[in-house]
Amino acid sequence: MSRPPTIIDVATRAGVSKSLVSMVLRDDPGVSDARRSAVLAAAAELGYRPNRAAAILAGTRTRTVGVIVDDFRNPWFVPLLDGIRDALAPHGLRLTLADTRANAHLDSSPFDDLVSLRVDGVVLAAEGFPDLVVPADTPVVVAGARADVPGGLDVVASDEAAGGRLAADHLIGLGHRRIVHVTGSGGPAAVRREGTVAQMVASGIEPLVYGDGPTSEQTGYRATVRALHDHPDLTAVFAANDLMAMGAIAAVHEAGLRVPEDVSVVGNDETPLAASPLLRLTTVDPHNDEVGRLAAARLIDRIGSPAPDSAGPIRTLVPPTLVVRSTTGPPRA
Amino acid sequence: MSRPPTIIDVATRAGVSKSLVSMVLRDDPGVSDARRSAVLAAAAELGYRPNRAAAILAGTRTRTVGVIVDDFRNPWFVPLLDGIRDALAPHGLRLTLADTRANAHLDSSPFDDLVSLRVDGVVLAAEGFPDLVVPADTPVVVAGARADVPGGLDVVASDEAAGGRLAADHLIGLGHRRIVHVTGSGGPAAVRREGTVAQMVASGIEPLVYGDGPTSEQTGYRATVRALHDHPDLTAVFAANDLMAMGAIAAVHEAGLRVPEDVSVVGNDETPLAASPLLRLTTVDPHNDEVGRLAAARLIDRIGSPAPDSAGPIRTLVPPTLVVRSTTGPPRA
Repeated sequence: MSRPPTIIDVATRAGVSKSLVSMVLRDDPGVSDARRSAVLAAAAELGYRPNRAAAILAGTRTRTVGVIVDDFRNPWFVPLLDGIRDALAPHGLRLTLADTRANAHLDSSPFDDLVSLRVDGVVLAAEGFPDLVVPADTPVVVAGARADVPGGLDVVASDEAAGGRLAADHLIGLGHRRIVHVTGSGGPAAVRREGTVAQMVASGIEPLVYGDGPTSEQTGYRATVRALHDHPDLTAVFAANDLMAMGAIAAVHEAGLRVPEDVSVVGNDETPLAASPLLRLTTVDPHNDEVGRLAAARLIDRIGSPAPDSAGPIRTLVPPTLVVRSTTGPPRA
Repeated sequence: MSRPPTIIDVATRAGVSKSLVSMVLRDDPGVSDARRSAVLAAAAELGYRPNRAAAILAGTRTRTVGVIVDDFRNPWFVPLLDGIRDALAPHGLRLTLADTRANAHLDSSPFDDLVSLRVDGVVLAAEGFPDLVVPADTPVVVAGARADVPGGLDVVASDEAAGGRLAADHLIGLGHRRIVHVTGSGGPAAVRREGTVAQMVASGIEPLVYGDGPTSEQTGYRATVRALHDHPDLTAVFAANDLMAMGAIAAVHEAGLRVPEDVSVVGNDETPLAASPLLRLTTVDPHNDEVGRLAAARLIDRIGSPAPDSAGPIRTLVPPTLVVRSTTGPPRA
């Protein structure tokens, strides 16, 4: 046999179907040990070496995708992980997770850590990687509108500006005219802020923006305390995420006011907290599960491509929706 | 030289101290490249091969500790990770994370996944691993009072029974006599429940226990709704964790009652949520940061030990404390 062996040669020699060979090569757990052994033996005897199979057979890859998130205290990433899992499942790929605080003590980048674990690719759902060096054989897809990540990478993000417009439109549609946007640091919050402010200006409303520091509950609380102090006539708060909205609600309560009778509050992220009986929070759903699914699908494409740089970087925006619950209503008369 | 070479032989040949050889063998970043080379050369020339050093020299280890947590929606694990990081830092060890849902679609155990990433050891902070096979060269330490994990492993846990007693004592000391414990599934909740019920019985109080299903906010909410229906005279709820306490507070509010004027609520875990301005939750602090520190320290001992099984399994209990905030007070008259 002078030509290189194909997957069909392997299947013929092992006495199994071509699709069973594929299953074995992608480490599908639904294959019996006996048939797996037969396929691997046939592949070895024939010297069968497709790109990916070679890596797997040589043990140089782990069939694992690394995911880097920013802060485990904000559960925005929970739906993202669900989506990533959904997309990895049919490919038999596993997932391991790092956060940007994980190994800060070692002055060690979580990205380099994942590379040294020999993951097959990385979903970068965090920022602060201005100097990231992406190895040619470890594709990276950015999830979210991240600042401080290298250019030239595929990005899948929710359309945060559209989310800001949705929230502003919802409040304006209810009749609110004195609206504050409570915001914080980071790329997604910045895009959201631009969309929100633009929509307020377009509707002839003075854009009130408060908040600096991390997009945490404490920042949301302090910003809303200040906003209520400066503008006692405000009737609505759009917070840059659900945790900040929790802080905003606390500030409204402390001022002796009710949500939504006196002040409406909108969050962002549709975290598991938003639907909780204690909050029942009206919030923008960025569809981070879909962001995760598409980011993982893009990554799988890049992993499977023999020439990862043949196609230029692709930017995908997922349209958000609004989930109306109990924290918004018409302004007080 | 007929006997196998020892670490002292390596130190003598390299012209360094024994402790410097140890530092090199554990990849301590505080060693200069020149001295590291000298030690590795001496070790190679002598054929020095302790178990761990062999693995490190052969590059079969990743200097990474894997951590398995149960559910990212409950942030109890955030302080645990902080503590683990503290303990890993001086040893230059990295951390990677998996959760029990991560690869469920592959019918793949997160433990086996971490082993296949060749981590140096695993902190198991989740349950549901009745068939766990612990490889001899990958030590495992269990963090928390987990059910369904193999015997024979080191365990570091908060003294959950003592935590239950603390919560019960706090409420009883305030004068409450009609107290419900809201609980759910899992090992830590079971131990907490036993401690709570025992303390109630010892104080001559009828132990009311509600809740079944996962220890989630929804379970806490539903259990408290039922408890308030069955026992309109109840004045206090001790929930098995902070998320369940959030659910309990929502149920109290929906019944038209106030916290703490009508019903006191105590949580458990001292998650980042507990201190939030919206909750200001009285809660049991299990000191999960300390659990993490001690679990990682134990794991490092096991990783460094040439004969991991020489010492039997060690069980360490961390004493909890109570953090009193704004959700508890004396019962209504």
